[in-house]
Amino acid sequence: MIPATTTAAVWRGGGRVRIEDIPIPPLGPREVLVRVRLATVCGSDRHTVSGRRPAPCPSILGHEATGVVEAVGPAGASCLDGSPVAVGDRVTWSVIVPCGQCDRCAGGVTAKCRTVRKTGHEPLDGPWPLSGGYAKHVVLPRGSTIVRVPRSLPDAVAAPAACATATVMAALDRAGAVDGRRVLVIGAGMLGLTAIAACFDAAEIIAADPDSDRRGHATRFGANRVLATVAEASEVDVVLDFSGSSAAIDQALPLLDIGGTAVLAGSVTPSTPLAVDPEQVVRRHLTITGVHNYEPRHLGHAIDFLAHTDAPWTTLTAPAAPLADLTHLLTTTSPTPRVAVVP
Amino acid sequence: MIPATTTAAVWRGGGRVRIEDIPIPPLGPREVLVRVRLATVCGSDRHTVSGRRPAPCPSILGHEATGVVEAVGPAGASCLDGSPVAVGDRVTWSVIVPCGQCDRCAGGVTAKCRTVRKTGHEPLDGPWPLSGGYAKHVVLPRGSTIVRVPRSLPDAVAAPAACATATVMAALDRAGAVDGRRVLVIGAGMLGLTAIAACFDAAEIIAADPDSDRRGHATRFGANRVLATVAEASEVDVVLDFSGSSAAIDQALPLLDIGGTAVLAGSVTPSTPLAVDPEQVVRRHLTITGVHNYEPRHLGHAIDFLAHTDAPWTTLTAPAAPLADLTHLLTTTSPTPRVAVVP
Repeated sequence: MIPATTTAAVWRGGGRVRIEDIPIPPLGPREVLVRVRLATVCGSDRHTVSGRRPAPCPSILGHEATGVVEAVGPAGASCLDGSPVAVGDRVTWSVIVPCGQCDRCAGGVTAKCRTVRKTGHEPLDGPWPLSGGYAKHVVLPRGSTIVRVPRSLPDAVAAPAACATATVMAALDRAGAVDGRRVLVIGAGMLGLTAIAACFDAAEIIAADPDSDRRGHATRFGANRVLATVAEASEVDVVLDFSGSSAAIDQALPLLDIGGTAVLAGSVTPSTPLAVDPEQVVRRHLTITGVHNYEPRHLGHAIDFLAHTDAPWTTLTAPAAPLADLTHLLTTTSPTPRVAVVP
Repeated sequence: MIPATTTAAVWRGGGRVRIEDIPIPPLGPREVLVRVRLATVCGSDRHTVSGRRPAPCPSILGHEATGVVEAVGPAGASCLDGSPVAVGDRVTWSVIVPCGQCDRCAGGVTAKCRTVRKTGHEPLDGPWPLSGGYAKHVVLPRGSTIVRVPRSLPDAVAAPAACATATVMAALDRAGAVDGRRVLVIGAGMLGLTAIAACFDAAEIIAADPDSDRRGHATRFGANRVLATVAEASEVDVVLDFSGSSAAIDQALPLLDIGGTAVLAGSVTPSTPLAVDPEQVVRRHLTITGVHNYEPRHLGHAIDFLAHTDAPWTTLTAPAAPLADLTHLLTTTSPTPRVAVVP
């Protein structure tokens, strides 16, 4: 029995989040209704609330969550692995809902679908009001990527898969194989720490972050050397940037050995241009490449990865707070890389 | 019967080239003696002579050539395809002679071998005096990449394979598949024109070059649009730069569509840094990558390619001059992309 309404934390602009009752619309074909178990607060939601990042308003934010399937619309729906979505499944779902029809979807870049929709990014008064995880329920539209969460994975560990972890999987796809290579990870927040754990078969992992708490996490997640600045680092084969700092990237590029690759993933707001020496790019066979969001397979890789590593993930997320605390959580900095809410 | 001496154009510094008799050393194991049929003059030899590019002196320059095998050293030698090198074979050979032992050779980047030797780049008084193509004979050391030239390919068309054409093959390797994509080629000299011909299955080829003669060649080699400046170009998926102009590359990067790739191959001298917007690299999934020299397989691809296209290659090379004209050829600009000498 689908309830008539749900409870959501509606973002009303600035730091204002109000707990409101929102109608649950009837499910259309291949739609799925999920009761949210837990949602984590991504840095980009803080940027939205602080005005650094444009977003529809009012809306329900939140795009890293887990939940339990409460109902499936006509004609059913499928998980990423092709199995049917069933009531009672504990799942997570991709930020990206691509159209599946446009040239970019056809070209395998669904992250840049021409009519892309995103969980936690859709207007409350639009066709997909229940898009965000900061609510008791979300509706997953036809075309959503849905992945079952293994029993062993706590909600607070699984929730970031839908943004932080899957983006790291996409960045590593761009980097190519890292086994036996020397890797520099810039920025030891949620994404950087995930990358450190994911590069376990690298020859060496150097992590650079000005924050000493984050450097502590970096060591515990497997970094061989932790540095306050990139300037202290030595020659590497791969640079993974999650800091978005042009100054740090400018310092990192000359560290790349022959055939080295820099994957930029952090530069998602306007920043100063990089100064790239084209002769070095040519003579040293360097590659600079960028990634933003991810493809459906990366959400599958993210959950598989989280289920099979023994990094101390639970230390990254503060104990979950109620939805009513969301204004506070969105407008203050946290001592842990992630905070969580339970609707 | 191996002659005791050969005749070579010895570069004695500046624009001075002297025709001299040079001893032919006895062939060591797996070495090959080739009688040169024709050598083309690469722009980099002009740079060497003008002082823009450091090089050992005295030396025999010339690294784009064809010739006939005159003798094979003890234990024989193999072509790239594995067949034995035989006296009488008409062949070409790679610029690069890698050690085959170091970490870079083991890693598949023989172009950046730690003890690389190069045809036409070795000192006359060193262990490999007869390295250059501006001579009646060259010695190909053990480990040289040797490719037989098909009967149908004139010498003047085949000779550039060893530098210009193979480098373009390496650049296209970096670009990934171009079929159905929009390609911008910057610089319509020998490499740019080769790239235009090699991108025959692209959706569109735009060529940019300030020189109107070169633009004429570009059209005849298959460019769909020719422009005097990159600023006039429209959105593309692939940029191939052979100009080495940072200003042109800076203008080209914003033209790249989502997922676009810029392959830099022309920036082989110090030049102004590129100003790269990291947010665009991230949000648009851009890749900037560089290539310098090439791998053995690319010489094979180059000869295969030249043997199977019907672009008007013979219009690119002036009728061959004698070795005695080399000083003139190296110190004056030519109306054709290549000039040739016959020793």
